[in-house]
Amino acid sequence: MGGNGPLKVVIVGAVACGPKVACRLRRLLPDAEITVLERGDHISYGACGIPYYVEGLFPEVEMLTETPVGVRRTAAFFEKAKGVRVLTRKEVFSIDRERKVVRVRDLNDGKEDEIPYDRLVLATGASPIKPPVKGIDLKNVFFVRTPEDARKIRDAALNSSSKKAVVVGAGYIGIEMAEALASIGLEVSVVEMFDQIFPQFLDLELALLVEKHVRSKGVRVYTGEKVLEIGGKDSVESVKTEKREIPADLVVVATGVRPNDELARAANLACHPRGGILVNAYCQTNDPDIYAGGDCALNQYVSPITGEYLYIPLGSTANKHGRIIANHIAGLPTPFPGVACTSICKVFDYTAGRTGLTEKNATDMNYDVESVIWAGPDKPHYMGAKPLVIKLTASKRYRKIVGVQIVGPGDVARRIDVVATALSLDATLDKLAYLDLAYAPPYSPPLDPIITAAHVLLNKLNGFAKGLNPLEAKRWMDEKKDLLLLDVRTPQEFSEVRIPDDRVVHIPLGALRERISELPRDRDILAFCKVSMRGYEAQRILNAAGFERVWFIEGGIVAWPFDLETS
Amino acid sequence: MGGNGPLKVVIVGAVACGPKVACRLRRLLPDAEITVLERGDHISYGACGIPYYVEGLFPEVEMLTETPVGVRRTAAFFEKAKGVRVLTRKEVFSIDRERKVVRVRDLNDGKEDEIPYDRLVLATGASPIKPPVKGIDLKNVFFVRTPEDARKIRDAALNSSSKKAVVVGAGYIGIEMAEALASIGLEVSVVEMFDQIFPQFLDLELALLVEKHVRSKGVRVYTGEKVLEIGGKDSVESVKTEKREIPADLVVVATGVRPNDELARAANLACHPRGGILVNAYCQTNDPDIYAGGDCALNQYVSPITGEYLYIPLGSTANKHGRIIANHIAGLPTPFPGVACTSICKVFDYTAGRTGLTEKNATDMNYDVESVIWAGPDKPHYMGAKPLVIKLTASKRYRKIVGVQIVGPGDVARRIDVVATALSLDATLDKLAYLDLAYAPPYSPPLDPIITAAHVLLNKLNGFAKGLNPLEAKRWMDEKKDLLLLDVRTPQEFSEVRIPDDRVVHIPLGALRERISELPRDRDILAFCKVSMRGYEAQRILNAAGFERVWFIEGGIVAWPFDLETS
Repeated sequence: MGGNGPLKVVIVGAVACGPKVACRLRRLLPDAEITVLERGDHISYGACGIPYYVEGLFPEVEMLTETPVGVRRTAAFFEKAKGVRVLTRKEVFSIDRERKVVRVRDLNDGKEDEIPYDRLVLATGASPIKPPVKGIDLKNVFFVRTPEDARKIRDAALNSSSKKAVVVGAGYIGIEMAEALASIGLEVSVVEMFDQIFPQFLDLELALLVEKHVRSKGVRVYTGEKVLEIGGKDSVESVKTEKREIPADLVVVATGVRPNDELARAANLACHPRGGILVNAYCQTNDPDIYAGGDCALNQYVSPITGEYLYIPLGSTANKHGRIIANHIAGLPTPFPGVACTSICKVFDYTAGRTGLTEKNATDMNYDVESVIWAGPDKPHYMGAKPLVIKLTASKRYRKIVGVQIVGPGDVARRIDVVATALSLDATLDKLAYLDLAYAPPYSPPLDPIITAAHVLLNKLNGFAKGLNPLEAKRWMDEKKDLLLLDVRTPQEFSEVRIPDDRVVHIPLGALRERISELPRDRDILAFCKVSMRGYEAQRILNAAGFERVWFIEGGIVAWPFDLETS
Repeated sequence: MGGNGPLKVVIVGAVACGPKVACRLRRLLPDAEITVLERGDHISYGACGIPYYVEGLFPEVEMLTETPVGVRRTAAFFEKAKGVRVLTRKEVFSIDRERKVVRVRDLNDGKEDEIPYDRLVLATGASPIKPPVKGIDLKNVFFVRTPEDARKIRDAALNSSSKKAVVVGAGYIGIEMAEALASIGLEVSVVEMFDQIFPQFLDLELALLVEKHVRSKGVRVYTGEKVLEIGGKDSVESVKTEKREIPADLVVVATGVRPNDELARAANLACHPRGGILVNAYCQTNDPDIYAGGDCALNQYVSPITGEYLYIPLGSTANKHGRIIANHIAGLPTPFPGVACTSICKVFDYTAGRTGLTEKNATDMNYDVESVIWAGPDKPHYMGAKPLVIKLTASKRYRKIVGVQIVGPGDVARRIDVVATALSLDATLDKLAYLDLAYAPPYSPPLDPIITAAHVLLNKLNGFAKGLNPLEAKRWMDEKKDLLLLDVRTPQEFSEVRIPDDRVVHIPLGALRERISELPRDRDILAFCKVSMRGYEAQRILNAAGFERVWFIEGGIVAWPFDLETS
């Protein structure tokens, strides 16, 4: 391996993938000459932690660069503890593939230099997209990338003259920043160009539930509104959309990121037209001596669902790429199996998570899928359960799991990970429905929510459960004047909260069999309860009595994304 | 289906599996005549919640019989809401398979009756094993099965004369009851016949960590001690073992359960010699019109690891059996895939969980396995991480996951469920190592602990990581006088807590390369740190410098089950 002398490995970028390659490679190849070049000041930092620093959950932004025992990951640390040379403020500005050297500029003194490599690793990350609107460069308009950004945002937010913040973009980072800013007392508005929050992440009905929760925390949310201009003279004063002008003392722009592939493009390495260095399963570019991993690379197909290129930049994937690259350089080839589109986001008291495809993704890709919305508690009620709303999607023909989305105050992460594991292993819905998951009252009900959701989807596929998605139910309610809404909850529940509609008939489930003659046979009946377990029971009771036009509203009151009447 | 008239289904037992069969069957077969017979007073109760009632986490034991919205599951509830007839205090005392009738005794008036069936479902549960020792019937000696037991135990525990409690048996129920009783102020001792707590559940080194935690809460633990006698005249006064006599005002006996298979045996249905009605994947006994499910049945093989019968009575499995049975009766055959030996237990601030086989199980079955102990935080340190200790086991030849055990204050359930899913789908360690699990700082580090554990085990199988299990390390320390213990933590960490041994040399990892000449090449070196990430680094650094006799102690200080020195 290599020519004369030790193998020279040059790594460009020292945030997530880069350090991982360097450290693992040092352990695998003790003699390799490993150099990491970073144009910034910070090494190996947890950029995903920025919103939590802004919120004040920990006191110093430098903690993002610490090891779990509190040692700061400086160049000296990498040299001494890891045996890896890291040079900061060194920008690689070109690659000479023929001579196998990178050209480097020192950002302190401007001096240029050449560094030879046997293997080159591009771990250049991604940069925030800067929307081309007037005012984007005003003071107090921020992007979210580095620890410096984090410190500037927090300083600006804590400034006594800062009262109002606008977040542009309602993806994870936008929503996380909105929570952070609201938590430290600012009046926060979020503006999103698409007609829902989390447009790349969740289907509409679940996004609406999360949006409801965000609003309940005092954050204003404007979806379907494009930012036309950022107003202000020196410092930002407002954000203008087609519909309104929102006063702003500070603005956080979180409209996505773009892979930093310029270096690779200039070196004539294959890149995707929409951005991203194309790599194979070993993270090799089309030049086998050059690797790319982390947010700058594109090998993140969803296996086994689709072979499409999907750009999902995440720290978890960047770390795995690092290991894949080090393994390959060291002669231990391990193919990267791709990602499952798994992501998770804390949103105040809720968690929103997803793995695999959304129903919209799947439909856009011409998959023939069936979905179900399930709502229910994440534990036995006597143990302080919290609700979850699950949307589970499977292919109709093969009954393979295609994806899941889960939102709510309950334990979302655990159920997302179960499905991420199951779909990565090509599982059918039947497999999911009988998994032996950990059960004890402090952790879950006897049948875990994800198992129950699988059961309901099987019931739907088998023709027993006739469920309507809440959005469909709402459309029927708007379009079909003569339908009947059958609320089968207890009188106590009914008195507390209701779907506000004149067509609601309230018959508790326990009285349904004896009062069945009160119901019409010639109208569509939409049954529901708190979560629609009883709604489904009601559908089966009515079917058994010969009623044919009966459906239940999936997820019931808990998953109802529209207004409810309380008293 | 059936002869003349509606299909008659008789279900014996109304705790978990029985009601599940009844309710699902009602939804699938609206016309069936379904009768549930229960010898006790309570229907459909969550027996697993008993320790939490005793602890006082909820005020009324009847909450164990409520639906999530607080409706009590009485016979009237089943009649009205579920369309199912449930008769309590009815004991089935024989089955006439030829005539297809069960003979029933009313426990109120002693009257006997016959009930005909087309399909019979045995869901008779299990009963606590009553050890044959003197004094077992004394007052204030309790078993844990029904809500009545729960109420009696709590009443006795809250009685002002109750100061000291002894729990006999250190399985889940024993440990949960010990926690409950200690939490309400009793002085609690646990006596276990085997030489560790959780003898059926965890390997020794993890059981020792949990035991340490239990002791830290003031509970005394006596393992390897058999109860010889329970002392006292009218009421219990003490528990006697070979080694001691422990004063006791109340005793809880939790030495396991035995399946209630007497009815089946008497009807000449196949049962296992050690107890349990043998059933096929559809929960049918050898009489195809008679099903058995839940704690009385035995079809709980671990797939795909072993085809052996394993008796693991759990509410989660009982509910799944219920669905399997209803499906089969309704003509929707769905084979039960078996269990993965998944279980979880809250132990004060710790959770202990396991899925698949322990290393001991696997070795006893002649599997050629490799295991690793991994310790580390369950989140980024800046987000308030809590530690986890993971023991992951895989087959050497196929690199298939065989099992995992996890203990600690961190989020155990999530990682157990990932492995339960992976091993149920026959996954290799490499698959586990690159799963796309949910990552965001409030939930996990970029590489989830279970992924990192898989990486270390792969490093071990690939010959890079030379790890020693803490028990092996301790044995080496006892047997090999001239070994050297190399603590590579920071001076700050070293000053706080240490392994008390004269052979410990302290060189922080960052200084190891320059101080390497201080170490001998002719002695075994056991490196370690807080969790042994740095211990492994040290091993690689020393290997690179030509040291061959170097190992790291897996899990480091965090997973060290023996005494530590603090200052």
